[in-house]
Amino acid sequence: MGNSFGKLFSVTTWGESHGPSIGVVIDGCPPLLPLNETDIQQDLNRRRPGQSSITSSRKESDLIHIVSGVYQGKTLGTPIAMFVKNEDPKPEDYSELLDLYRPSHADFTTQAKYGIRNPYGGGRSSARETIGRIAAGAIAKKILNHINNIEIRAYVESINIIKMPFLDHFPSVEEIDASSVRCPDPETAKAMVELIQKVQEEGDSLGGIILCRIRNVPIGLGEPVFDRLEADLAKAMLSIPATKGFEIGSGFAGTQMKGSEHNDVFYQKDSGIRTLTNFSAGIQGGITNGEEIYFRVAFKPTATILKTQNTVNTNGNPVQFQGQGRHDPCVLPRAVPIVEAMAALVLVNHWMIHQARSLKLTSDRV
Amino acid sequence: MGNSFGKLFSVTTWGESHGPSIGVVIDGCPPLLPLNETDIQQDLNRRRPGQSSITSSRKESDLIHIVSGVYQGKTLGTPIAMFVKNEDPKPEDYSELLDLYRPSHADFTTQAKYGIRNPYGGGRSSARETIGRIAAGAIAKKILNHINNIEIRAYVESINIIKMPFLDHFPSVEEIDASSVRCPDPETAKAMVELIQKVQEEGDSLGGIILCRIRNVPIGLGEPVFDRLEADLAKAMLSIPATKGFEIGSGFAGTQMKGSEHNDVFYQKDSGIRTLTNFSAGIQGGITNGEEIYFRVAFKPTATILKTQNTVNTNGNPVQFQGQGRHDPCVLPRAVPIVEAMAALVLVNHWMIHQARSLKLTSDRV
Amino acid sequence: MGNSFGKLFSVTTWGESHGPSIGVVIDGCPPLLPLNETDIQQDLNRRRPGQSSITSSRKESDLIHIVSGVYQGKTLGTPIAMFVKNEDPKPEDYSELLDLYRPSHADFTTQAKYGIRNPYGGGRSSARETIGRIAAGAIAKKILNHINNIEIRAYVESINIIKMPFLDHFPSVEEIDASSVRCPDPETAKAMVELIQKVQEEGDSLGGIILCRIRNVPIGLGEPVFDRLEADLAKAMLSIPATKGFEIGSGFAGTQMKGSEHNDVFYQKDSGIRTLTNFSAGIQGGITNGEEIYFRVAFKPTATILKTQNTVNTNGNPVQFQGQGRHDPCVLPRAVPIVEAMAALVLVNHWMIHQARSLKLTSDRV
Amino acid sequence: MGNSFGKLFSVTTWGESHGPSIGVVIDGCPPLLPLNETDIQQDLNRRRPGQSSITSSRKESDLIHIVSGVYQGKTLGTPIAMFVKNEDPKPEDYSELLDLYRPSHADFTTQAKYGIRNPYGGGRSSARETIGRIAAGAIAKKILNHINNIEIRAYVESINIIKMPFLDHFPSVEEIDASSVRCPDPETAKAMVELIQKVQEEGDSLGGIILCRIRNVPIGLGEPVFDRLEADLAKAMLSIPATKGFEIGSGFAGTQMKGSEHNDVFYQKDSGIRTLTNFSAGIQGGITNGEEIYFRVAFKPTATILKTQNTVNTNGNPVQFQGQGRHDPCVLPRAVPIVEAMAALVLVNHWMIHQARSLKLTSDRV
Repeated sequence: MGNSFGKLFSVTTWGESHGPSIGVVIDGCPPLLPLNETDIQQDLNRRRPGQSSITSSRKESDLIHIVSGVYQGKTLGTPIAMFVKNEDPKPEDYSELLDLYRPSHADFTTQAKYGIRNPYGGGRSSARETIGRIAAGAIAKKILNHINNIEIRAYVESINIIKMPFLDHFPSVEEIDASSVRCPDPETAKAMVELIQKVQEEGDSLGGIILCRIRNVPIGLGEPVFDRLEADLAKAMLSIPATKGFEIGSGFAGTQMKGSEHNDVFYQKDSGIRTLTNFSAGIQGGITNGEEIYFRVAFKPTATILKTQNTVNTNGNPVQFQGQGRHDPCVLPRAVPIVEAMAALVLVNHWMIHQARSLKLTSDRV
Repeated sequence: MGNSFGKLFSVTTWGESHGPSIGVVIDGCPPLLPLNETDIQQDLNRRRPGQSSITSSRKESDLIHIVSGVYQGKTLGTPIAMFVKNEDPKPEDYSELLDLYRPSHADFTTQAKYGIRNPYGGGRSSARETIGRIAAGAIAKKILNHINNIEIRAYVESINIIKMPFLDHFPSVEEIDASSVRCPDPETAKAMVELIQKVQEEGDSLGGIILCRIRNVPIGLGEPVFDRLEADLAKAMLSIPATKGFEIGSGFAGTQMKGSEHNDVFYQKDSGIRTLTNFSAGIQGGITNGEEIYFRVAFKPTATILKTQNTVNTNGNPVQFQGQGRHDPCVLPRAVPIVEAMAALVLVNHWMIHQARSLKLTSDRV
Repeated sequence: MGNSFGKLFSVTTWGESHGPSIGVVIDGCPPLLPLNETDIQQDLNRRRPGQSSITSSRKESDLIHIVSGVYQGKTLGTPIAMFVKNEDPKPEDYSELLDLYRPSHADFTTQAKYGIRNPYGGGRSSARETIGRIAAGAIAKKILNHINNIEIRAYVESINIIKMPFLDHFPSVEEIDASSVRCPDPETAKAMVELIQKVQEEGDSLGGIILCRIRNVPIGLGEPVFDRLEADLAKAMLSIPATKGFEIGSGFAGTQMKGSEHNDVFYQKDSGIRTLTNFSAGIQGGITNGEEIYFRVAFKPTATILKTQNTVNTNGNPVQFQGQGRHDPCVLPRAVPIVEAMAALVLVNHWMIHQARSLKLTSDRV
Repeated sequence: MGNSFGKLFSVTTWGESHGPSIGVVIDGCPPLLPLNETDIQQDLNRRRPGQSSITSSRKESDLIHIVSGVYQGKTLGTPIAMFVKNEDPKPEDYSELLDLYRPSHADFTTQAKYGIRNPYGGGRSSARETIGRIAAGAIAKKILNHINNIEIRAYVESINIIKMPFLDHFPSVEEIDASSVRCPDPETAKAMVELIQKVQEEGDSLGGIILCRIRNVPIGLGEPVFDRLEADLAKAMLSIPATKGFEIGSGFAGTQMKGSEHNDVFYQKDSGIRTLTNFSAGIQGGITNGEEIYFRVAFKPTATILKTQNTVNTNGNPVQFQGQGRHDPCVLPRAVPIVEAMAALVLVNHWMIHQARSLKLTSDRV
């Protein structure tokens, strides 16, 4: 279980890393949305391996095929099924790993939970699973764009201890994608790439933080109590492989502020109500207030490294092994579109839930 | 919507802060669990206002009433309905606030979302809503105790910049509750209480971090992909009022480690497989590996302060107001049982989901 | 589990027949709906025992209390919690029944499933559970009335072999409630009442069929495939105690027609598309077409009879017993408002689901 | 929405009749279940068109492809994705139908709901959608067989007015499939086939009733109140295209019995508790009692006929048309495996839900 996300715009992913294909089914997409494979491919290309020197060299074109739910270039309102083929699995890279549990991977827990696992490439726990999320997220983004020109932009804020300075504007995709590390500050990006390359040569790996910003969000999205918007964002982000933390607005640093400093004062602007500061990150009481939403996601250093490591085999006996194969020394550049996709899925679902209850009731009507 | 939590052990809370009562319905509790009101009251007492000099002086006995689902001291397997009466609402404390939007409260967003709100005490957004969560969590804890003696212990690790040192053992409830601030390190606790009292006198408020630890968790809980255990914990924690962040295991600090430092090496101990370090916090690939689970939750400084603040009224015009009433200068001491309750709800649900699929299939049987 | 109904307008009932109270929580009600207890009481009164000579003489005023979700006469958009007290439980009526399994009741299966049961009055399996459904249904009806003046009218079409002739108009509540048996054909109603009284004197019971009709339903409600409107209606009806069958439109009799007779021919009327016949009962492909919806629900004869019966005790040994207490010789008159309530819950949920996805997308917009 | 079925063994179907393929994803299948494509193909072959002279001559091999969730002949516990290709779509058969609404089809309601439709072969409303259900049902049947050798057997009991006599044993698949009409009484089957052929020549169509019987069901499955086993069966059956009614046990005929006749008397047999009669059809209070479950499903005559019919075009103007193409004069023979599949999905889900809550709590343990 656990392979579906979203109550109304419901996304189900399927497929193992080294199976014939990987895919997704979306149930609940509104009809009449213009949609073709190019809309989706551009987001998938940002996740694809082999896109730069600092990503895995596994060769996958990750071409998306839409096999249902679209007719004459528009969505039908029926389930949208999509898949990509797995083209470059190299099972031989894993031959030494079949009988051992790689540290900080899902090998051991998967075997313990199910009594069986597909040992090639992490099977279902592979990051290739996120292909379906990105495909679904690309559609969600189109819907958000339609609703209110809602825009979601994630980028790499830090790699290890290298952190970019505050960015005073909402960056374009081009600014973000200008560097292979997807950090919109050119100098920081350069330092990040150098560090990644250095660590890559050592056969080691790095972690970091992705910042995600969302603007033009209508006021009123999010359900109080359990389904607060930030709660659903937190779940969405922690469902991404390799994530270890989520903070919104003032986050952990905000715990060191006083209430008088932290409260976001309301004022009127252009007949709308705004806040002077935005420590709330656009969400109060779980509901959007129209200000920019921003949150950070912590990614651990990739578990796959090429150094010799100690572990146990499936019998529990100690063994040493050295990682082979193609790996990412740092997952963050390729994780940027995943963060955006998951944020888009959360927002579309909340928009639909809010919409469902909008009777536009007024006291003189009923 | 959004007032229910949990797919199988399903909890629905209801009630406004100043309505006649506040309650909860639990659907999915196993039958035959010994249960009486005392089991629940002891957890509610840890959340109750007026329990110490550093909590709100609102006088509420918060006595729990079980009105269904229990017969002769045991659960029936039918819905368990429980409620407490609201005894000490003081609507006059809010009379000045009816027509304005308090900064960083849910007043504005609630009004914008629904076109109506109960303005007394935050209505549904009041922390009194969490009474139902704690009552449900108390039952969940009993189930967890039954399953495998699973124990959940939350405590206050930091208030503002005051942080306790690393605790080298799993603390008892008594150690935690020894101080009114629920920090198990006596010296730190003393400093925390002093700081809270000082800020309370200033009419200001403080935030901080709660650490939650869980031991004796069976191997194999958690569903890969969207319903990873850490994802559901993140959602649960960010659904608690005033939370701004969640990190598990190495968390945000772990982003500054290398893979070779961060990987948790497996070894065999007493014929079981264990890890030498525990940066994974007992969860790998979204599934428990039997090690201790630990995570941190960031709480912002309480929005209610007694200083004069600027804001707008419901017409959008600027006004000044000064908070009256009884407030908590710091929510963390009373939030400790809420964190435990939500963690318990997540674990019980995951245990049930795992159990649902356990066919104990072996190849010679089918 | 299984005590909640509806994905978006979600209803959870709780309470045992002889517990202190019986209630319901509704999550997902739109805000600003005018609502008071009278709106609900009038439907509850139609279900209340003791309303006529042919219903159980248990004395229950079934007064509804709304304890959350309503403020100044309007819904808040927060959970609506409601309950009624159980006033006239007579445990002594059940003292002989504690240790045996009444035939065709839920005593045996409940004990087998849970290992425990509240033996008084059927516990959770009592028809008193439906109080919460009717209360929720009363609110759902108000919403439907607001949406499009949608009207739901159920009535007793047959009792045993006594069947009313075809009714050529949509009856008023007054016509239906003119007789205690809730059959709008006066002559048939008279014969039904006489038969029920005769059988009641014999200590026996009767079954029958309720017909439910719904008009002014907007075109386009219902989701193809699994959540067809008729599928959800079927589930809703078979969830009512004592039901054994559901048929919509031509139903079982329609299996003896040919396609050329059964197809509903389309024609244009007042610039709308209508059908000449209505064997489809207003639903085609699971989606409403604007014609009247009508369906039938079969109720078995009440299991509680006052004749001496053979059964086994809880040890499995044969025993004889004679029903005491207050029972309904025929549940149908009191089941009429339950059928209406469940139909209302289905329709409100489908209306919300349809609404959730209405982006009003047009090709020039996106 | 509405393309998923089942809370724990969750099935999502996708695909349009004339798209490239049709498929299904199952989330929640237990691991270690032996599974290959042959297990599924044998059920699909019973639904396939062209299998006899009385079914549509559309040529589809309907070969199933499993693309995820199975490894070395066993299920992994991950999502099982499967599809079949659409091989013989003949869009030209529909060229005349693109601009009109066929009577008693979903053309009009689909267009009205979504503002768009795939007009070829009914698009998503085609019975080809049920391929995914049968594939999922085949897996569910394997699980049920493992649990307790649970067997599900559906067969055609009547076609139009031709009805088979009572069958005094639980028939084998071979007995049912001995005739192309899937009626296990040879004489009745012969008369049915003759009637179907006669009506087929007239270009007309027939309806009928399928009886489904289930044995070896464990005691205790089914959740009281809304998720009674019969309620979920009713929903499952009414979700099958062309169904108009469902009755369980005594059904509609039982409304003409008295309680004293209808009650199923308990007695002890081999230290188990059984009932002398079985009007309850193995379900009491929504929970199984171990007796045989049996229910009937009414299918209307196929809407597609080859006679000239009146209807309107998409502009609402009256038109005449004559059906072309390949159609089933009677859907029942091919619907038999669909009824079995849906029943299997209901039972597996209820078994899992029951299992989820089984803490095996005893009073001395907690």
